[in-house]
Amino acid sequence: MSHALWGGRFEGGLAAEMVPLNRSLDVDWRLWRHDVRGSRAWARGLERAGVLSPDEAAAIDGGLAQVAERLEALPGPAGLPDEDIHTVVERLLTEIVGSVGGKLHTGRSRNDQVATDFRMWGMEAVAGLREQVAALVDALAAKARTETDAIMPAYTHLQQAQPVPVAHWLLSRAWPLVRDLKQFGAVADECRVLPLGSGAVAGCPFDVDRDALAAELGFSHVSENSIDAVSDRDWAAKLVFAAALTGVHLSQLAEDLVVFSSAEFGFVRIGGGFATGSSLMPQKRNPDVAELVRGKAGRLVGNVAGMLAVLKGLPTGYNRDLQEDKEAVFDSVDTLAVVLPAMTGAVAKLEVVRERVAGARQAGLCATDLAEHLVRRGVPFRESHHAVGALVRIAEASGRELTDLTVDEMRSAHPAFGDDAAAVLAPAASVESRALRGGTATAAVEVQLQALAEALREA
Amino acid sequence: MSHALWGGRFEGGLAAEMVPLNRSLDVDWRLWRHDVRGSRAWARGLERAGVLSPDEAAAIDGGLAQVAERLEALPGPAGLPDEDIHTVVERLLTEIVGSVGGKLHTGRSRNDQVATDFRMWGMEAVAGLREQVAALVDALAAKARTETDAIMPAYTHLQQAQPVPVAHWLLSRAWPLVRDLKQFGAVADECRVLPLGSGAVAGCPFDVDRDALAAELGFSHVSENSIDAVSDRDWAAKLVFAAALTGVHLSQLAEDLVVFSSAEFGFVRIGGGFATGSSLMPQKRNPDVAELVRGKAGRLVGNVAGMLAVLKGLPTGYNRDLQEDKEAVFDSVDTLAVVLPAMTGAVAKLEVVRERVAGARQAGLCATDLAEHLVRRGVPFRESHHAVGALVRIAEASGRELTDLTVDEMRSAHPAFGDDAAAVLAPAASVESRALRGGTATAAVEVQLQALAEALREA
Amino acid sequence: MSHALWGGRFEGGLAAEMVPLNRSLDVDWRLWRHDVRGSRAWARGLERAGVLSPDEAAAIDGGLAQVAERLEALPGPAGLPDEDIHTVVERLLTEIVGSVGGKLHTGRSRNDQVATDFRMWGMEAVAGLREQVAALVDALAAKARTETDAIMPAYTHLQQAQPVPVAHWLLSRAWPLVRDLKQFGAVADECRVLPLGSGAVAGCPFDVDRDALAAELGFSHVSENSIDAVSDRDWAAKLVFAAALTGVHLSQLAEDLVVFSSAEFGFVRIGGGFATGSSLMPQKRNPDVAELVRGKAGRLVGNVAGMLAVLKGLPTGYNRDLQEDKEAVFDSVDTLAVVLPAMTGAVAKLEVVRERVAGARQAGLCATDLAEHLVRRGVPFRESHHAVGALVRIAEASGRELTDLTVDEMRSAHPAFGDDAAAVLAPAASVESRALRGGTATAAVEVQLQALAEALREA
Amino acid sequence: MSHALWGGRFEGGLAAEMVPLNRSLDVDWRLWRHDVRGSRAWARGLERAGVLSPDEAAAIDGGLAQVAERLEALPGPAGLPDEDIHTVVERLLTEIVGSVGGKLHTGRSRNDQVATDFRMWGMEAVAGLREQVAALVDALAAKARTETDAIMPAYTHLQQAQPVPVAHWLLSRAWPLVRDLKQFGAVADECRVLPLGSGAVAGCPFDVDRDALAAELGFSHVSENSIDAVSDRDWAAKLVFAAALTGVHLSQLAEDLVVFSSAEFGFVRIGGGFATGSSLMPQKRNPDVAELVRGKAGRLVGNVAGMLAVLKGLPTGYNRDLQEDKEAVFDSVDTLAVVLPAMTGAVAKLEVVRERVAGARQAGLCATDLAEHLVRRGVPFRESHHAVGALVRIAEASGRELTDLTVDEMRSAHPAFGDDAAAVLAPAASVESRALRGGTATAAVEVQLQALAEALREA
Repeated sequence: MSHALWGGRFEGGLAAEMVPLNRSLDVDWRLWRHDVRGSRAWARGLERAGVLSPDEAAAIDGGLAQVAERLEALPGPAGLPDEDIHTVVERLLTEIVGSVGGKLHTGRSRNDQVATDFRMWGMEAVAGLREQVAALVDALAAKARTETDAIMPAYTHLQQAQPVPVAHWLLSRAWPLVRDLKQFGAVADECRVLPLGSGAVAGCPFDVDRDALAAELGFSHVSENSIDAVSDRDWAAKLVFAAALTGVHLSQLAEDLVVFSSAEFGFVRIGGGFATGSSLMPQKRNPDVAELVRGKAGRLVGNVAGMLAVLKGLPTGYNRDLQEDKEAVFDSVDTLAVVLPAMTGAVAKLEVVRERVAGARQAGLCATDLAEHLVRRGVPFRESHHAVGALVRIAEASGRELTDLTVDEMRSAHPAFGDDAAAVLAPAASVESRALRGGTATAAVEVQLQALAEALREA
Repeated sequence: MSHALWGGRFEGGLAAEMVPLNRSLDVDWRLWRHDVRGSRAWARGLERAGVLSPDEAAAIDGGLAQVAERLEALPGPAGLPDEDIHTVVERLLTEIVGSVGGKLHTGRSRNDQVATDFRMWGMEAVAGLREQVAALVDALAAKARTETDAIMPAYTHLQQAQPVPVAHWLLSRAWPLVRDLKQFGAVADECRVLPLGSGAVAGCPFDVDRDALAAELGFSHVSENSIDAVSDRDWAAKLVFAAALTGVHLSQLAEDLVVFSSAEFGFVRIGGGFATGSSLMPQKRNPDVAELVRGKAGRLVGNVAGMLAVLKGLPTGYNRDLQEDKEAVFDSVDTLAVVLPAMTGAVAKLEVVRERVAGARQAGLCATDLAEHLVRRGVPFRESHHAVGALVRIAEASGRELTDLTVDEMRSAHPAFGDDAAAVLAPAASVESRALRGGTATAAVEVQLQALAEALREA
Repeated sequence: MSHALWGGRFEGGLAAEMVPLNRSLDVDWRLWRHDVRGSRAWARGLERAGVLSPDEAAAIDGGLAQVAERLEALPGPAGLPDEDIHTVVERLLTEIVGSVGGKLHTGRSRNDQVATDFRMWGMEAVAGLREQVAALVDALAAKARTETDAIMPAYTHLQQAQPVPVAHWLLSRAWPLVRDLKQFGAVADECRVLPLGSGAVAGCPFDVDRDALAAELGFSHVSENSIDAVSDRDWAAKLVFAAALTGVHLSQLAEDLVVFSSAEFGFVRIGGGFATGSSLMPQKRNPDVAELVRGKAGRLVGNVAGMLAVLKGLPTGYNRDLQEDKEAVFDSVDTLAVVLPAMTGAVAKLEVVRERVAGARQAGLCATDLAEHLVRRGVPFRESHHAVGALVRIAEASGRELTDLTVDEMRSAHPAFGDDAAAVLAPAASVESRALRGGTATAAVEVQLQALAEALREA
Repeated sequence: MSHALWGGRFEGGLAAEMVPLNRSLDVDWRLWRHDVRGSRAWARGLERAGVLSPDEAAAIDGGLAQVAERLEALPGPAGLPDEDIHTVVERLLTEIVGSVGGKLHTGRSRNDQVATDFRMWGMEAVAGLREQVAALVDALAAKARTETDAIMPAYTHLQQAQPVPVAHWLLSRAWPLVRDLKQFGAVADECRVLPLGSGAVAGCPFDVDRDALAAELGFSHVSENSIDAVSDRDWAAKLVFAAALTGVHLSQLAEDLVVFSSAEFGFVRIGGGFATGSSLMPQKRNPDVAELVRGKAGRLVGNVAGMLAVLKGLPTGYNRDLQEDKEAVFDSVDTLAVVLPAMTGAVAKLEVVRERVAGARQAGLCATDLAEHLVRRGVPFRESHHAVGALVRIAEASGRELTDLTVDEMRSAHPAFGDDAAAVLAPAASVESRALRGGTATAAVEVQLQALAEALREA
């Protein structure tokens, strides 16, 4: 095991039991590009600060370019003797350029270095997730556009509530993702604060231009306190939380797909390529895609609790506990990166079974409209609600549906029912009657689709 | 138990075992002002929509004013027969104004109503938390301003690392809270989306002007999808997360106070009014304030996991599981509302024990400066680091400190040490040498204090 | 605010901002009986140790009896000036018996005292939960006994899988609760370790007979290390976890009730007294009981994360963070105490709608039996599975069911189908064919019911 | 991608976006030995049930032995086309033995198969963890045996409380681990319930002797309900929780090591091989081992929340969400398997710095003994506590220590102080005075060491 970066005062190496605990290379390997890029910028910063001569800076820069080539060619970190990616890069650099490589680490520490690398990675990762979330929103919107005229029951308490266009349900699962897009955007903004130049904890004594470094590496601000800079993992916690909330939203869509694709509902059919079978039961066609997504949301929730528990109660300055930040972040990002495309594909291939959707609607679905019919005739809503409740009981008691009752029967419950009362029990009429913004009428859904497209552009 | 709001189709009341599970009044009681205010706005909306006559609207409005007076006079919900605050308000209204009260619930549902009430409460709660967080930032900054010249060790791994002004440490605990302020601001923005007008799940068939309602009730937008509107608790989850992250930051400051007020460190003394004693041990002076804050951060973390677990996997539409949102939010807000003022007071009364801070500094605290001395004389940092590491070993082996070594001894480790090498071991020189933004030099700390004040204004 | 227990070295009282953070009385009030009982036992212990004279001990014992009477008469802690229940009890005692009351706290600390009180409360609470869990198991078993002959589809992936008796489903929700019973039993055992006699952290210098104390107060062991004794909250963490796992089991039963009581499934009907209605929609009959139970499971999960986060990283000895233990434990126990009886009542009143259960069964439900028919005729299962899969496709393509296929059609997929192949597609035959322990045959379910009764006796 | 196990009714393969979500082979690869072993037992069970002829069973058995050889030779699952380990095993078997391999899956499903494999793995994993925990207990006990006579301050609130032997502190960190051992034992017991024979969800129609299977595979019981059997992950949740609680205990020991190895405390020195250095600061000697352990406890806590969130609200039967069980369990076990040996090594190599421990003791450490001195002279403890509190104030006000006060000064606070009062301020006397079980006296610590050894044998 190499001790190149900190060995001076130590005799003997790490104990064998300590090596696997101490080694982070298998986790932080994926930061190598950011480590090289940040190191090249740092070398230029040292040059501008007069710490490196132009020749030294050029040697280091060229050496780091070669390091990148070597790392690009490696399949992974297996077999490397180094404890982390920073050690790998500095070791290779020194092998390539000789002792001048030892000048690179001037004025910086792995503490500000890893914080910088990780934020650079974070910016990229969040940008990638945002594209994937937007693709799912697009898929939901595209599917909704094809289902504006099919009318399904909306549910509360998983009981049929009122009629809505299928599009309205699909769009209800898109808006939360738009909020997720905005939240990821805020996380990306928070990534863009440069820690480099904060040293181990107390800053850097060389006159490096931190603003120039920030601009070069894609940051918008520089950190304002060196102690905070090396220990701040807020952006990482927020990323993990944003991923969990996205996971929760996906799990809710997944639950709908599981329930709606059951034989009993039969509203949707999971498309070919996304349904799976059983090793035992030949007839099965399972919505595994949705269940896997729902399950992975649990893991994303766990990552939030874990990350916050890691950070809680840490004393001042950099503490090695912070190394646990990366596994949670990487796992959350990787999980979403697998889940989002699968869900997008499943939505794109989802088949809405219109005859089942239409056939499922209960007669009572427009009971509220019946009560509102009375309201329009001057009856207080509370009284109307009671009257229609009584009609529901009458129908149930006689084994009939609400739509089977005569006007006279209705009037036995309340005299104000009009001759046209039964007309309001038509689902299409009910849907069109709710025309406010966010409502179910065809025009309102059209407005909603446009608002979603705009929100997507702005998010 | 009153069933006034939904009893029509039911015979018999709730089972005795069901009542305590179903009743949310003890929790949602605190929403009564918002429920009344929202109801008055809704009545005006119904009037403008032509659903209520001016006389009816006036009667309801006056009645609701009287309801508010009655509720104001009550000590709490104990003894009320109603299942929730909405039922209380409508019951009292009808007692006061008679059957016209039954017209209030036209076109709305408890689903959009509670979502509206809760967001109104949330806006106020977040505003209150933001003031409390800002007060703690102010207290840290004020204390920092009095400690710009005292030099303490900064720590990494709770080992002495490099010298920093005490102010720099105090400010390192303020910046995370500034980030919290911003995060709470984003939560407040998200609260400002009005669900009212979404009905139970499918919107409202009466021509209520939702934008006018939003303006009247302090919202900035109206919701875009009625299904999403009644089931969206994202803002609540984000509030609970923001509270947890704030709690984590407070727990880290608390950890510092616990460690620094120990006899062994002795850097700070918890002020009178915030230290407590022991029932058994007469000599004890305990930092309970910090421990309680640290402990409560755990609970705040738990609330995040709980809230996300509640939301995960919910099917489409409103589900009663959502009732669990309020306890987590109320608990998180209440917890911070107790914790923040206590911490603010403790910081204001904190005594920095300067002689202990100064006396604690180890001779090796400026070892990095010694390595940087060599760097300035052309030695690669990695080589310098090794040389100083060797000096540390030499000093340890002979029972001396780094500051006790002669220049000749230093040169035995590396020939490039200058005659003035020992001068860099002075903590004040070390502190002043790190003058970049975010660094430890007096001028840099002054810049930092100004930046903090500005950030606080903008947050 | 009273400082009676620790004021000696302090001037001035607690700061106003500190009081609400420091005060635990509103939470620990419910420990008063245990505090009095433990105090009486401690007084007797001090007497046996010769620290108290018989007269002193008698005075204290009588005084504590009076304290109990006073506390019994109080509605709650509102208005009391004390910071915690231990202070209340000692203050009242001294008011009643005078300065001899000040002898009670000899050799003990609030640290071992509260740990003892809390464990005493824990034993009782767990015993109560065990009774409530057992009652729910009984309700499930009783309901199962009435549904041994109704055949429903069992599900995997919420897709119909194979036929099972309704009883088998009900019992599948009982066994997890039997495991919970055992886990609560283990928690109760762990409660029974007496901390009293451990002082603040370092033990007690008076010769109190700890074994006698343990026996008197219902403990089975005494703690073995005084530092561990005052800081050990393992039993509390385990109780919170056991409650969460129970909550998870209840949430799974709740999910079944929500799904099965939907109009589309219609397998069960939530009984009168447990179903609720809508404030807007007159026809609704909602399974709120199940949703509330499902939601509360989320909160129980959060309590686990919170409790573990509180405990993580605490330094040696008693730390005030531990005060947060009680709120999580009380909340988890209180939550289950509301949830379990409601679920027990809902199960007892649950109506299984046999015609819907029977009518829902798809023809493909016995596809596996068809494959097994081939197996019995020597065909490798993998080949049989493929053949039946092909039949499913044939049936689907022609808009028919598996039961509609002729033997010739079957033989086109595989020649080994027997003339009696179609017989295996009868659900009752399928159910009876799986007669192994844990299987679906009538006799196996009967064995299962007996095993459950036995397990319940032993748990 | 192979669809061998469930392809019959499907046309086309999985969508490219679905493959990475669906594939579990990279995770469940480590179950291959258990899958082969379980499959061989199942084949013998089928033979005994008359489903396989002796020749067929022998062919399958021999084939599975060859499968094991092939898998043993593979470096890992990379490049294999199969979705999970069960598919790998059956595919290889069929390649080796031909179509008779297709008879192996008769009467079982991947649902009962994976539940069985995973429990077999769990038994082994828990046994391994138990050995590692026991080794750490041994290391703590061994270190304690060498430190029975060094006296350190015990802490409450991280303030010096009372004197204790260093051994007593070390042992206080061993007892929680003994409780962990017991908890892992309970988890192992719960693993030992055999699901095999439960099929996909509804049991097995062939007369396989489940008790014989259980005995052959190391199980103690067979499952009692086939639906429960394929969906029960309680043991996994309990294992993840037990690991988290162990992690919490380790984090508390770690916190002690971090604090006690700080320069300011200086009580311990992390041994060579376990301390690490800084890339920037040459003098640093960091307790990374302890910080990494503390950090990893956070992750273990997250796994509990994640696992419970996965399980919450799942509907009846097997759901694919359950696949998420393995990653949490594997991660928790792997984490402890890295952490425990490192901590054991660090404890074994830990150096207690006796002069710092002794030198740190404050004069007030025996203030409680002084109060107890008064108690022995008949003064009520509460009055004694106040008197000594007053002495602490007197000493502080005059810049002296409690040990500097004269008897006359003591008597000014309370007349009952004896001439020998100062003697009780000797730490050794204080330690020896607390001789109850669990106390600090030399003899009590000796008893404790024996009790620990016995508890370890029994756990």
